[in-house]
Amino acid sequence: MEVTNRYITIRTQVDGHPEESDFELIKTASLSLSLDPAGSIDIIVKNLYVSIDPYHINRMKTQTSSQKVVLPTAAITPGEVIDAYGVAKVVASRIPEFEKDDLVVGFITWGEYSLLKRGNYMLRKLDPMGFPLSYHIGILGLSGLTAYGGFFEVCKPKKGEKVFVSAASGSVGNLVGQYAKLIGCYVVGSAGSTGKVALLKEKLGFDDAFNYKEEPDLHSALQRYFPDGIDIYFDNVGGEMLEAAVVNMNALGRIAACGVVSEYIDATKRAAPSIPDVVYKRIKIQGFLAADHMNVFSDFLSTTTDHLRAGKLHALQDISDGLESIPSAFIGLFHGHNTGKKMVKVADQ
Amino acid sequence: MEVTNRYITIRTQVDGHPEESDFELIKTASLSLSLDPAGSIDIIVKNLYVSIDPYHINRMKTQTSSQKVVLPTAAITPGEVIDAYGVAKVVASRIPEFEKDDLVVGFITWGEYSLLKRGNYMLRKLDPMGFPLSYHIGILGLSGLTAYGGFFEVCKPKKGEKVFVSAASGSVGNLVGQYAKLIGCYVVGSAGSTGKVALLKEKLGFDDAFNYKEEPDLHSALQRYFPDGIDIYFDNVGGEMLEAAVVNMNALGRIAACGVVSEYIDATKRAAPSIPDVVYKRIKIQGFLAADHMNVFSDFLSTTTDHLRAGKLHALQDISDGLESIPSAFIGLFHGHNTGKKMVKVADQ
Repeated sequence: MEVTNRYITIRTQVDGHPEESDFELIKTASLSLSLDPAGSIDIIVKNLYVSIDPYHINRMKTQTSSQKVVLPTAAITPGEVIDAYGVAKVVASRIPEFEKDDLVVGFITWGEYSLLKRGNYMLRKLDPMGFPLSYHIGILGLSGLTAYGGFFEVCKPKKGEKVFVSAASGSVGNLVGQYAKLIGCYVVGSAGSTGKVALLKEKLGFDDAFNYKEEPDLHSALQRYFPDGIDIYFDNVGGEMLEAAVVNMNALGRIAACGVVSEYIDATKRAAPSIPDVVYKRIKIQGFLAADHMNVFSDFLSTTTDHLRAGKLHALQDISDGLESIPSAFIGLFHGHNTGKKMVKVADQ
Repeated sequence: MEVTNRYITIRTQVDGHPEESDFELIKTASLSLSLDPAGSIDIIVKNLYVSIDPYHINRMKTQTSSQKVVLPTAAITPGEVIDAYGVAKVVASRIPEFEKDDLVVGFITWGEYSLLKRGNYMLRKLDPMGFPLSYHIGILGLSGLTAYGGFFEVCKPKKGEKVFVSAASGSVGNLVGQYAKLIGCYVVGSAGSTGKVALLKEKLGFDDAFNYKEEPDLHSALQRYFPDGIDIYFDNVGGEMLEAAVVNMNALGRIAACGVVSEYIDATKRAAPSIPDVVYKRIKIQGFLAADHMNVFSDFLSTTTDHLRAGKLHALQDISDGLESIPSAFIGLFHGHNTGKKMVKVADQ
């Protein structure tokens, strides 16, 4: 069987705020959905859901030599297919592990089909366990693992500790706050709209939340929300919020540096946290990636599915429809348009 | 027996660079060297060596409410006695643990005698173990424990790792470099003069060293000295050096934040390290104080005395003579005048 494939790519490297004109939908020549035994393609999958993540902006930038060392995944080349986390269905496979019609989760592409080359794919078979497929790239996928590993492994929380989460209605932040509540922490989140603040307090059980856009002085805002100081700061934004948090941290406080959305698109927003505070209060600032915590993946999955089944965790999802919506979904991340895990549904199962 | 006591104090809070005119030598009225059974003084000691440390500048500043939380030891009040680490000899004691003529180490004062109040002193009996008394406030005292705890407990070094130490000829830095060499790390230090650089390479066994004042671009200097990146950065200075180090760190690198001399006297020198580097390279930045590592004190002491006896560690000391020299000794710390552990010998045993 032959189809045409369509995929989203960038026209040029993207430095600064991404815009619609930076993206392009490419339609390929016809593509055979059966595998050539002598070819380099091992598996073809039909993409169902793809993840939309801020870190892609770093891969789209003009690369400097220091960035090349820093980036954990390859730079994105204009015109070429863009890989991304997602859920898909196997169309054809030469690998015994995957059969036609199997569901898989892992790195696929921002396209209708993904052609995965020998030895160059990260996929695993997916058992949906009765949950919607979309959950497996959000709350049960890399976002969930990022929240779980970052909070439990990096921050090592104890019951009763005071936890601050920035971008708290985002894909990772909302889960960190929910996990923190489940173990008896006091949790305050920051977000960028009244609606998001209400959601955090009313639906997700945060003890408190505030709209950072309405706070002219983040330092005193944090002092108000944490009169006894912050024990754990889960940082999704960097910049001024990180500076304000450091000043408000308690002794032996822990900061999980998960993302720096503010700096990804504007390097002048770089934070200058008070290092004397870091020294005297013996603060730990620890950068991490979900990949560092694959060792707790099975713990993460069983804990999270148990809580989901018990109705104690909410999956906060923000799903756009159709391949064409990928650019606007991605651009929206940098304007705070998403609430929860942003993803695009590319096709029905 | 009655004596007069003399001590050094500050005339006023010291904000910015300390100067001679900020200090004053005060001569007390006559002081009895025997204890009043009804009085509040439990021990009187005759001070022999006192430690001169940069962190005192923070205690001398005008205190803001956030500093009050941050400072691990009390603010210093103009006109009053200043406590400091040191070695002393007991003159009179009402505590069974300490007898007349015992040597002690701990918190005494920048004076000739220290009058220590009930329940308000941190002292232990000192067995010099054949080493000079001065060693017990430097290489075998808090500076040594800071280097040992910070390097081994915070940085968790492995043989062959690349270690960078700033202020490497300072009281703590020189020891970190020496410990690192002893376990087979590659060590480069930065210091502020040609003489110090030579000392690090020729006497202390550093693999390499450079004069930061001769490097217009610290980022490329570190790139030159660490073509394969830095695994561990022991930070004694903060500021631009911290920024340059973060960019040159390897994945999973560790930064021990020990001191921020540059910021103590000039808050505009605050570092803005790249948090995207921290995230992507999963760098840990950890503030610490020697007091956090009292649990390894006996390990520290036995390891360090063994190496000293074997001639594998050098005690780098910088001793001024006489109580009057305390202000200039202290001020000199902020001009890089000291080489190794700065202290003042107040009296002979």
